Amino acid sequence: MGKGRVEAFTDGVVAIIITIMVLELKVPHGEDLSALAPLWPIFFSYVLSFINVGIYWNNLHNMFHTVQRVDGRVLWANLNLLFWLSLIPATTAFMGENHFAPVPVAVYGVDLVLCGVAYRILVTKLHRLHGNDTAFAKALGSDRKGKISVALYITAVLLTFVNQWIGVAIYFLVAAIWFVPDTRFSRVIEK
Amino acid sequence: MGKGRVEAFTDGVVAIIITIMVLELKVPHGEDLSALAPLWPIFFSYVLSFINVGIYWNNLHNMFHTVQRVDGRVLWANLNLLFWLSLIPATTAFMGENHFAPVPVAVYGVDLVLCGVAYRILVTKLHRLHGNDTAFAKALGSDRKGKISVALYITAVLLTFVNQWIGVAIYFLVAAIWFVPDTRFSRVIEK
Amino acid sequence: MGKGRVEAFTDGVVAIIITIMVLELKVPHGEDLSALAPLWPIFFSYVLSFINVGIYWNNLHNMFHTVQRVDGRVLWANLNLLFWLSLIPATTAFMGENHFAPVPVAVYGVDLVLCGVAYRILVTKLHRLHGNDTAFAKALGSDRKGKISVALYITAVLLTFVNQWIGVAIYFLVAAIWFVPDTRFSRVIEK
Amino acid sequence: MGKGRVEAFTDGVVAIIITIMVLELKVPHGEDLSALAPLWPIFFSYVLSFINVGIYWNNLHNMFHTVQRVDGRVLWANLNLLFWLSLIPATTAFMGENHFAPVPVAVYGVDLVLCGVAYRILVTKLHRLHGNDTAFAKALGSDRKGKISVALYITAVLLTFVNQWIGVAIYFLVAAIWFVPDTRFSRVIEK
Repeated sequence: MGKGRVEAFTDGVVAIIITIMVLELKVPHGEDLSALAPLWPIFFSYVLSFINVGIYWNNLHNMFHTVQRVDGRVLWANLNLLFWLSLIPATTAFMGENHFAPVPVAVYGVDLVLCGVAYRILVTKLHRLHGNDTAFAKALGSDRKGKISVALYITAVLLTFVNQWIGVAIYFLVAAIWFVPDTRFSRVIEK
Repeated sequence: MGKGRVEAFTDGVVAIIITIMVLELKVPHGEDLSALAPLWPIFFSYVLSFINVGIYWNNLHNMFHTVQRVDGRVLWANLNLLFWLSLIPATTAFMGENHFAPVPVAVYGVDLVLCGVAYRILVTKLHRLHGNDTAFAKALGSDRKGKISVALYITAVLLTFVNQWIGVAIYFLVAAIWFVPDTRFSRVIEK
Repeated sequence: MGKGRVEAFTDGVVAIIITIMVLELKVPHGEDLSALAPLWPIFFSYVLSFINVGIYWNNLHNMFHTVQRVDGRVLWANLNLLFWLSLIPATTAFMGENHFAPVPVAVYGVDLVLCGVAYRILVTKLHRLHGNDTAFAKALGSDRKGKISVALYITAVLLTFVNQWIGVAIYFLVAAIWFVPDTRFSRVIEK
Repeated sequence: MGKGRVEAFTDGVVAIIITIMVLELKVPHGEDLSALAPLWPIFFSYVLSFINVGIYWNNLHNMFHTVQRVDGRVLWANLNLLFWLSLIPATTAFMGENHFAPVPVAVYGVDLVLCGVAYRILVTKLHRLHGNDTAFAKALGSDRKGKISVALYITAVLLTFVNQWIGVAIYFLVAAIWFVPDTRFSRVIEK
């Protein structure tokens, strides 16, 4: 089964997710700059989520490069990932509109944990399909980065109840780790 | 007439349908977990519809693999299917916001019946275009699964007026039947 | 300049237009069928617009088949068409929410006139670019259908002020004329 | 790394941005033409933004034609541009709903400045990746047009506080400059 349409559909859904978040930036009616001030937590959460969804797009882009085929299990593992990603606009708005209160920040983090787990599942299904001795498996390695991210997200969710800004800081830290696109896959592509 | 753009357009519309449903998950303003509680029927109906639309995407993906060409009738049969699929966000919200009351659950089921019928029409038009002695026709067979689904959806709609949860249970049952992507088509592709 | 990305972008915008119209079908909060009754004008206008946008997609699909190249003028003529098409969700809602009152029905028709004119402009630019002795020009012929549609839409807008249902009837009449995809282009493709 | 999916994703996001702006054209409930009158500033700002986003799509379309490959830096520079473009629906609505008051007009301009800067950054990263002696570099030249646009936008933002219509006029002036698609790139493509 070809990977072309899975890529196209995934790109489509991710493009919509990343764009509809902006619908939350509801327009203030005041005419001066102070009217924009109450928007900052919504804007700030939008920036964080734009980066996070951008990272997923980037990594999916690089990963699918070395993928050679897909099967039914991969299609569903991919839809599972898209499901948790599709909740990001809602959890982002929940966090932003409640001005980064602890529970919404934790809920946002739980969604990130589930996205991370879904990504790991997708990678595992692809690994099983391709076998150990393929470009895909070599590029993936032990996927330490993926495992560390999930662990950090869980830590962030827990620490949110000490102080929510620790949670937010860890979300940015994980984003920074992934910011550089997954060079493992690009390194293999170069060869 | 090539099938490429029909596939791309269909993927685009389905990607948008599956994603805009999340706009119904309107953000609660409370800052704690109890604020999320009233969202459960909307979330639950979102999950059901995400799976249903995902199944359509999956099956359309597999089916178009064995398709060799399309004509005007197929284009319109496809748009007809997209029309009924495009109502799913509205019927999902109707069902979720009314906490699975019988009439909204039945209306949701009627939309599923119409999607199922539209899928059958599309398959029939493609069958007629390709003839009996083609990969497409062999993969399709008698389409028992498609016919049973429509029959089950009609049963579900009727039983909703006895107890709506029977209806909901049947919707999940049909989803489970289709969850495994249509191996008939993939089996033919493998060869 | 290749036509691939213009097709893809056009498909994307049309897919979004056809899908976001459904956001107007706002969910009623009543739990029984009578709650759906007030939705009928919005649903009815949605059906009409879904068919109209579907027709444009269909005809653009067929037309671009015989197109061989595009230039800057074509890109802008295409964006111009997309602009007027992008207003259809708004004019549809204006018509539906005001229960097919004369002025909204006329405004809807004016948008259809402008879409029709924009389509004629696009076709003319493509004709000029391809020259008379090409598959495109032969498929296009005198474009009587395009010219008649614009004339009928103008008539419909004017007759709306006698009785708006005459206008609505003509909108459906034009849709019926175009419903069969433009066989001129498909005929040329067959050869 | 191939450029195909970056193009497709970019097209998708731009298609969504250009289309969701129309959701701001909220339907008036009056039944006559006077009901449309209060919409003019929103409609006027929609037209300006449709042209602006259309210009970006057009120029990205032409620019990616001469691009031969992309790397991680280009992907992020592209996402950065998409981020600032994604704010256009919000800044457009802010400007339109406040009837072109000075501060919203300036905020809109600041977003255009940031889009322009992001476009320059993207072009620079691509230039560095391709080297000086390539079709891309030759097509780009000194990018005077890009630099002048940013300078004009900054001027427009400042002059908005003298009179906001000077700002709006300059926004239209820059649009006019870019309206003709970037012939530098198309000239190279022709060869």
